[in-house]
Amino acid sequence: MSSIKDFTDRLDKLDFRNMYEGDFFLTWEKTDDELSAVFTVADALRYLRENNISVRIFDSGLGVSLFRDNSTRTRFSFASACNLLGLEVQDLDEGKSQIAHGETVRETANMISFMADVIGIRDDMYIGKGNRYMHDVVDAVTEGYKEGVLKQKPTLVNLQCDIDHPTQCMADMLHIIHHFGGVDKLRGKKIAMTWAYSPSYGKPLSVPQGVIGLMTRFGMDVTLAHPDGYDVMKDVEEVARKNAAASGGSFARTSSMEEAFRDADIVYPKSWAPYAAMERRTELYSAGDEAGIRALEKELLAQNAYHKDWCCTEELMKTTAKGSALYLHCLPADINGVSCVDGEVEASVFDRYRTLLYRQAGFKPYIIAAMIFLAKVREPQAVLRALSEAGAPRHIFE
Amino acid sequence: MSSIKDFTDRLDKLDFRNMYEGDFFLTWEKTDDELSAVFTVADALRYLRENNISVRIFDSGLGVSLFRDNSTRTRFSFASACNLLGLEVQDLDEGKSQIAHGETVRETANMISFMADVIGIRDDMYIGKGNRYMHDVVDAVTEGYKEGVLKQKPTLVNLQCDIDHPTQCMADMLHIIHHFGGVDKLRGKKIAMTWAYSPSYGKPLSVPQGVIGLMTRFGMDVTLAHPDGYDVMKDVEEVARKNAAASGGSFARTSSMEEAFRDADIVYPKSWAPYAAMERRTELYSAGDEAGIRALEKELLAQNAYHKDWCCTEELMKTTAKGSALYLHCLPADINGVSCVDGEVEASVFDRYRTLLYRQAGFKPYIIAAMIFLAKVREPQAVLRALSEAGAPRHIFE
Amino acid sequence: MSSIKDFTDRLDKLDFRNMYEGDFFLTWEKTDDELSAVFTVADALRYLRENNISVRIFDSGLGVSLFRDNSTRTRFSFASACNLLGLEVQDLDEGKSQIAHGETVRETANMISFMADVIGIRDDMYIGKGNRYMHDVVDAVTEGYKEGVLKQKPTLVNLQCDIDHPTQCMADMLHIIHHFGGVDKLRGKKIAMTWAYSPSYGKPLSVPQGVIGLMTRFGMDVTLAHPDGYDVMKDVEEVARKNAAASGGSFARTSSMEEAFRDADIVYPKSWAPYAAMERRTELYSAGDEAGIRALEKELLAQNAYHKDWCCTEELMKTTAKGSALYLHCLPADINGVSCVDGEVEASVFDRYRTLLYRQAGFKPYIIAAMIFLAKVREPQAVLRALSEAGAPRHIFE
Repeated sequence: MSSIKDFTDRLDKLDFRNMYEGDFFLTWEKTDDELSAVFTVADALRYLRENNISVRIFDSGLGVSLFRDNSTRTRFSFASACNLLGLEVQDLDEGKSQIAHGETVRETANMISFMADVIGIRDDMYIGKGNRYMHDVVDAVTEGYKEGVLKQKPTLVNLQCDIDHPTQCMADMLHIIHHFGGVDKLRGKKIAMTWAYSPSYGKPLSVPQGVIGLMTRFGMDVTLAHPDGYDVMKDVEEVARKNAAASGGSFARTSSMEEAFRDADIVYPKSWAPYAAMERRTELYSAGDEAGIRALEKELLAQNAYHKDWCCTEELMKTTAKGSALYLHCLPADINGVSCVDGEVEASVFDRYRTLLYRQAGFKPYIIAAMIFLAKVREPQAVLRALSEAGAPRHIFE
Repeated sequence: MSSIKDFTDRLDKLDFRNMYEGDFFLTWEKTDDELSAVFTVADALRYLRENNISVRIFDSGLGVSLFRDNSTRTRFSFASACNLLGLEVQDLDEGKSQIAHGETVRETANMISFMADVIGIRDDMYIGKGNRYMHDVVDAVTEGYKEGVLKQKPTLVNLQCDIDHPTQCMADMLHIIHHFGGVDKLRGKKIAMTWAYSPSYGKPLSVPQGVIGLMTRFGMDVTLAHPDGYDVMKDVEEVARKNAAASGGSFARTSSMEEAFRDADIVYPKSWAPYAAMERRTELYSAGDEAGIRALEKELLAQNAYHKDWCCTEELMKTTAKGSALYLHCLPADINGVSCVDGEVEASVFDRYRTLLYRQAGFKPYIIAAMIFLAKVREPQAVLRALSEAGAPRHIFE
Repeated sequence: MSSIKDFTDRLDKLDFRNMYEGDFFLTWEKTDDELSAVFTVADALRYLRENNISVRIFDSGLGVSLFRDNSTRTRFSFASACNLLGLEVQDLDEGKSQIAHGETVRETANMISFMADVIGIRDDMYIGKGNRYMHDVVDAVTEGYKEGVLKQKPTLVNLQCDIDHPTQCMADMLHIIHHFGGVDKLRGKKIAMTWAYSPSYGKPLSVPQGVIGLMTRFGMDVTLAHPDGYDVMKDVEEVARKNAAASGGSFARTSSMEEAFRDADIVYPKSWAPYAAMERRTELYSAGDEAGIRALEKELLAQNAYHKDWCCTEELMKTTAKGSALYLHCLPADINGVSCVDGEVEASVFDRYRTLLYRQAGFKPYIIAAMIFLAKVREPQAVLRALSEAGAPRHIFE
C-alpha cells in the first residue's frame, strides 16, 4: 500500500452504513461488505501507525473492559486498540462467580457509561449466557441513550462469548488474507478446523464456532473435525452450511483428524470442551454445585484422555497441501514436551510457525480498533484522509 | 444555554477565589458562592463536552484514587472526571483492613504525588476516621509542597467519608436544580430525607448527613425521618439547623415516614446504619474483633427487621405533593421483589423514576471535574472561554 | 539552569549513542557518559515540566508494568514517568508464585507488546532469576522485532532485580549530585552503605548492591558495612572494586558500623537479607516448600535479632563528617518507636532528614523517564529543543 487512498478507495466500494452507531456481536450478523470494511480499516489504521501517524479520534473518553475470565492477550489487545484511538481503559471486573441479572445489568451499564465510548466484554464461560449478557448491556445503554441519560451510546465489542470470538477469528482471517495475498486467492482453499487433545479442561467453543461461522464465507472448503461427543452448537453449524452454500465453498464434518488434514491449505488444531458438557457446567455453576463441577472436570479430563492421538504432528502436517499448510492457533497452545507431556501440537511444528503465529495475533488490536472506528465514525473515509493529511506523529523521536 | 458566556457571566458574579489551590472535604465548609461555582462549572464542562469541545486542561498528570471500600459508580465517576480533564487515573487501593497512620500516611501521600494533580479518596467505613484520614493526606502533601518536595499540591476530592458524601449530594442537588428549573424555584419546597428498610447491614451515614447538611442551604424545608435509634451525627444536625435558619428554610426531625412524605416535593428514602452502631463497629474493626463484628451485624439486621414498614410505597408516594414528588436515590437501591424481598422502595415506584435516577447519577462526573477545575485553575472564566474558542474536538467522527 | 540549552550543551559532550534502542538492566553495563546522559535528561525533563512545558513524545502507546512483588512507590514512579511522556500504563501482574519460563515468556512478551513502547519489570524475589527473566523478555521482543512481529522494540526498564536497583540508585545519585552541588564535588567524599537492623525478613539485596556498583564510579570512598554472614553477591563487590580503581576512589568492607560511619559524608543504613539465605529461599520457593520457607524466615529473624545494635542513632550520626552526613534511604524505613520498636534508624534522625528523603525519592520518576527517552529518541538534543520551543503547556490553568 502506498497511500491512504488505496484504503479509502476500497471502502468507497463497500456498503457498511449500518455499522455506524452499531455493535459487534457475531460475524454472521454482519454483511460481507461490513466484514471487508473491518479488514480494510484495520489495515488502514496499521498503515498509518506504522508510518508514525496518530489515529487518535478521541481526545478523551473511556473504553470499559469487563472480563469474566482471566485474560492477558485479549485484555492487552483491547487496551492497545482503545489507547491507539485515544480512549483510556477502565476495568470493571466482576469476578467469575457474580453473574449479574436484569435490573443490575441495566443500572450498572448506564452508571459506567456516562463518559464511555466503548464497552468490551469477555464472557465465554456460560453457555447461553455470555452473548445474552452482552445484549442486555447494549439494550441498557441504548435505552439510556434514547432517554438522554447518556450523551453517547457506547459501542459493544464482543471480546469472546459463548457463541463466537469475533475479534480472534477476524484477526485469524486477516492473517490468512495477507498470507495468501488477498481474499480472492482463498477460493477453493481447504481449511481444517480440528479438535486436538489437551490435558486441560473446559476450553470454550467460541473459537471453533467462530472459525466455521466466518471462514465459510470466502469460498473456502471448511472441514470441522472432532471426536464423537465433541460437537459444537448446532445453530452455528447451520450458519456454516448456509455460508458455504452462499459463498460457493463447502462445509464438511468428519470425526477423522487425518481426513481433515489431507490436502488442507490451512489447519487450526485446537482443543475445546463438548457443547453438552459446557451446558451441564453452566447449570452446575448456576447452582453453585462445587462438587458437581469437580466431578464434571474429572469426567471431561478422562474423556479427553481417550483422544491423545488428536495431535498436530509432523507426520500429519506432511499430508497437507505441499506438506506445508498454514498452521493457525489462537494461543496459548498446549505444546508436546513444552507446556505439557501430550498436547495439541508437536514442538517442532509449533516452532516452525511461531513467527507466523505471533503475526496472526498481532492483527487483533487493529481488528478491535477497526470495529470501534466503524461504529463511531460517521464518515470513515473522510476521517482516515484527515488523519493522514494532519500527519500528527504517533511519537516524536527525532 | 446558548454559549459559554452564559456560564462565565454567572461565575463573574460569584466569589470563589478561596477554592483555588484548595480541597473539597465537606459542603458546609464552602460558601454559597463556592457551591454555585461548582454547579456552574459542572454545567459549563457538560455544555462543552456535549458540543464536542475538549475540556482537557492537563496534557499529563495523574489522578490518584484511593478506595477503602468496593465501589463501581464512584470509581467510574472519578475516572471519568479525571479523564475528561486529561489526567490518567492510577489506583492506590490499600484494602479495607489496612488503616494507615501518621508517618505512613505522610510518606505515602508524598510518594504517590510527585506527578499527581488530584487525589480522590473514599473512606467511609470508620466513624471518626475517614475525614480525619483525608486531612492527614492533605496536610502531608501541603507540607511536601511547601518544602519543595512536590512541585504541585494535589487537590483532594472527598469521594465519601464518614461525615459527608459531597460529590453525591452536590450531584443530587444539581439534578434537583435542573429538574425544578433553577435554584430560585426551590424556596419553600419540602424535601424528605428518610430512612428506609434494607436487608443489608452497615450502610454509611454520609448520604443522609450530606443531604441535610447541603439541602438546608437553599431555603427548602428539609425533614429528616428515621426510626428511633437511627440517629445521624449530632454535629451534622446542628449544621442543618443553622443552614436552615440562614437560608430561610427549615429543618425538622420526625420518627414518622408518613409525616415526612406528606406534601413533600422531593423524597430521598434510603437505608443507613445507626451512628452509635457505626461507632461500635469502628472499635471492633480497630480491635480486629471478628466475632464481635459478626455479632453486631446480626444485631443490626435484627434491629432493621423491626422497621420493614419503612418502605417507599405507591401509597406513600400518593401523599406527596400532587402525588408526584421527585424520588431520589444514590443507587443501588434495595427494590422490593427485585434485589430483595422487602427493601427501600416498591418496584413500580422505582421503575417510574429510573430514567430520572440515572440522570441524577450522571451529574457526578461533572461535579467531580468542576471541583478539580476550581481547585486547579487560577482563572476559570478565562480558561473556559479559551477552551470554547479553541474548540478542540472531544472526538473526530466526521 | 536558565534554558534548555544548558542541558543540550552538556549532552553534546557525551557519547551515549548506544543507548538508542537499548535497555537498562544494570548501571555497570553503562558507560560513564551514558549515566551522565541519564542524569542530564532527567534534569532537562524536570526543568521543562516545572516550567509547564509538555514533554509528551508519545501520542499513544503502552507502558507495560510487571511487578512480581507488591510495590507502591516504584509503581507510581513508573506510572508517572510513562504518563509524563504520553504512555498509558497497563499492568501485567502475574503474582508472586508464577515464575514463567522459556516458551511462555517468549510468547507473553510478544503478545503484550504489539503497541508497547516500554516494559518495566520488578522481579527481585529470586536470586539468579530476576535479571535472567528480564533478559528473557528482552530477547523475546528483540526477536519479535527482527522478525517483523513487532513494529517497535519495547525498551526494558529494570525496576529492581536480584542484582541491581538502577532506578533507585540513579535517583539516589542524582540527589547526591544536586545536594553537593555537582558531580565534581564528590571526589574524595566518603559514603557508608551499611546494613541496619530490621524486624522484617528477606529484604532484597539490590539496593546495597546497586549502591556499591554505582557510587564507586565517581571517585568517592565507598565503605560497605554489615555483620558477618550478611554478604552481598561477590560479583557485585568485584564490580565495586574495579569501579573504585578506575575512578580514583576506593571500596572498603568492614563489619563495624561505627567504622563505616566515622567521618562519612553520606550514610545509607538499610536492612537486607544475607545472600546465602536468599539463595536458599529461592530454592524453597521453587520447590514450593512452604514449611521450609517459614522455618527459614524464623531463622533469619532470629539471626537479625543478634544485630539490633546496627541502628542509625544520633550518637553514630555525630561521628560523621561535621556530625551532619547526608542520610539516605530508599524508603520505607523501619523507624525506632514509629514503625517498629527497634529498627534501622532513630526517629529524631529520620525526622531531621525527612524532606531530603522525599526529595531523594522525587528523582525516580525523572530517572525512569530519562531511561525511556534515551532508549527511544534518536536525537535527544533536537527533541528536547523542539519540545522547549513548541512550549505546549503541561496544564492550562490561566
